[in-house]
Amino acid sequence: MKLSQLDTPCLMLNRETLLQNAQALTNHIQSLGVNLRPHMKTAKSIDVAKIALEGNFGGITVSTLKEAEYFAENGIKDMIYAVSMVASKVKRAAKLLKNGTDLKCIMDNPDAAHAVAERAVELGVELPILIEVDVGDHRGGLMPDADNLMAMARALHDYPGVQLAGVLTHAGNSYGCRSVEELQKIADEERDGALIVVRKLRNAGFPCEIVSIGSTPTAVHARDLEGITEIRSGVYMFGDVFQAGIHSCQTKDMAVSVLATVISHRQELNCALIDAGSLALSQDRSTAASGLPEDVGYGLVMDESAENRTANMHVARAFQEHGVLECDGSFPFDQFPIGSRVRVFPNHACTMAAMYDSYKVIDVHGEVIDTWPRVNGW
Amino acid sequence: MKLSQLDTPCLMLNRETLLQNAQALTNHIQSLGVNLRPHMKTAKSIDVAKIALEGNFGGITVSTLKEAEYFAENGIKDMIYAVSMVASKVKRAAKLLKNGTDLKCIMDNPDAAHAVAERAVELGVELPILIEVDVGDHRGGLMPDADNLMAMARALHDYPGVQLAGVLTHAGNSYGCRSVEELQKIADEERDGALIVVRKLRNAGFPCEIVSIGSTPTAVHARDLEGITEIRSGVYMFGDVFQAGIHSCQTKDMAVSVLATVISHRQELNCALIDAGSLALSQDRSTAASGLPEDVGYGLVMDESAENRTANMHVARAFQEHGVLECDGSFPFDQFPIGSRVRVFPNHACTMAAMYDSYKVIDVHGEVIDTWPRVNGW
Repeated sequence: MKLSQLDTPCLMLNRETLLQNAQALTNHIQSLGVNLRPHMKTAKSIDVAKIALEGNFGGITVSTLKEAEYFAENGIKDMIYAVSMVASKVKRAAKLLKNGTDLKCIMDNPDAAHAVAERAVELGVELPILIEVDVGDHRGGLMPDADNLMAMARALHDYPGVQLAGVLTHAGNSYGCRSVEELQKIADEERDGALIVVRKLRNAGFPCEIVSIGSTPTAVHARDLEGITEIRSGVYMFGDVFQAGIHSCQTKDMAVSVLATVISHRQELNCALIDAGSLALSQDRSTAASGLPEDVGYGLVMDESAENRTANMHVARAFQEHGVLECDGSFPFDQFPIGSRVRVFPNHACTMAAMYDSYKVIDVHGEVIDTWPRVNGW
Repeated sequence: MKLSQLDTPCLMLNRETLLQNAQALTNHIQSLGVNLRPHMKTAKSIDVAKIALEGNFGGITVSTLKEAEYFAENGIKDMIYAVSMVASKVKRAAKLLKNGTDLKCIMDNPDAAHAVAERAVELGVELPILIEVDVGDHRGGLMPDADNLMAMARALHDYPGVQLAGVLTHAGNSYGCRSVEELQKIADEERDGALIVVRKLRNAGFPCEIVSIGSTPTAVHARDLEGITEIRSGVYMFGDVFQAGIHSCQTKDMAVSVLATVISHRQELNCALIDAGSLALSQDRSTAASGLPEDVGYGLVMDESAENRTANMHVARAFQEHGVLECDGSFPFDQFPIGSRVRVFPNHACTMAAMYDSYKVIDVHGEVIDTWPRVNGW
């Protein structure tokens, strides 16, 4: 099938670019002697997971229990659910464990661990839990010097229903970096922050089998991972304009884009409209952050083949089902007649892809070769 | 079923509030002697459409052809697809027409009208087209004084395959208003802009059966709609924090919210985490616009019953699956223990609801009485 036969807007996935991105990080992490546990929150697709797992140990990361259930149904056995577990969710986790999935969860609070443990006992399972450590991202986690770190380890070690499986960090603060040097520094800090906690736990006699760290920017720029057992990354599979802006990939590595149709010319406003707005592109504006090479609005726009970009064309504004194309100088209306098509590359691949229930997969010749479903929702 | 039995995050719809909102605008528009054609882009649900259509003539507005197909399957016969039609989409429209749906489309370009007309002839249908007029929103449309307005009317009137069905405007610029006086002024301008074009067309001998205008803020504040045949509005059914901020509704009128669970306490950062992040809440930041009473971040937070709000609590930051709760003063951790639940009300109901494939419908007692599916995608 040709691109021209697709209804728009739709989500395109360039299989060759995906293969290259997956192989590149796999090679890099292997060269550092560490396991790569791909984070499937970006792709949410078993077809993509199979590619990401090539040459790796077979474990994945998930961001929702729905992903966990979907990937378990599709044969994946080893997972970390990397969002704090709570008692009300133990039932779904227990079902996965009972069906043979080695599902590990994360937590950062001893009282909550108690509640989870009680529920796990009721349900007749023992849930492996990693202690989440905040190495600078200031999202979830205990600080490495937290007073209750040992109480947390003891809770997980002592309570029936749970077991202490290790330590997990996420250096999301790497997204604030603007140079390779800064990224390498954050990558080192992430590793060191995790290892401080690992040493404390082991010195106190606790097991700490898994030491799981990661974010795409720190994984790409990691140079020494001694003491770490695994790296989690997700967006490296697809890349995006933001990741290119912070040197995690190049724009040629971007694997997903939205195919859209020009639906209106506004000569007097020097812009054109496409049929992809805030629902088709997401409302992600991460390239608006300071210190990036270019703010592309709601997406970077190339021609239908994704080979050429005209005059920094981008989606300047987004309404629910309308995107406004603007570029430097006079808008080239003749080059983009109504009915012609463009490709919009994302600020953030995770959020753009989340607006679709499947990928239209294209090969190196730009032929549509397959449709791969995604597992959205919770 | 009780709220406490629901998995989180999930999208809640308060049926009573929806009924009141639907009735209020129906009464107001009827008092002005005009038809209300509810815009289903917000709700994307036949169950909601049935409520919105009570007391009205039965026609709806849609924002995607997928909505059109879904509502046609569910028995609705009269629709306007309010995004510019292009030739590549005529096939789907033609199928609806052939199956008995009175589907009207909009366009703003004579050349594109020619291409659509040719395709319609090939497919053996005659597509009713409204001329889209830009009354100040500067999204789609011809300006009321556009040179090619008559060429457009002539094209739609003369080409086989299409017919001129009327004029359509959308005063999206009403979202920039901050007072009732400003809204009334924009409502008057929208009406007058449409009527200028209607007069020109009729004076030139063209038919102009439908004069369709609308946006929720201008519909709510319209005082005189003489010459207009119908009003299109969508978000009035649900309301949201932004609409309350610009006086289109009150916060008590908000019908949709996300039920979320507290999953982490960050005492040292004076915040808590919930399991609803940028995918569960959307990335809409419309309350960040200037001149509004309050920027609620990624959503306004109330307790599980949606009756009380503590210290201006809101979602200050959103990661993919994590939202960060903040409030004035010290965060009340004891009041919101890990495992407790909150309700997050949207900046923008359309974009939050779009992240879900169904509504959990609750009655006046807070009991979950039904699940209503949504039609997402294109």
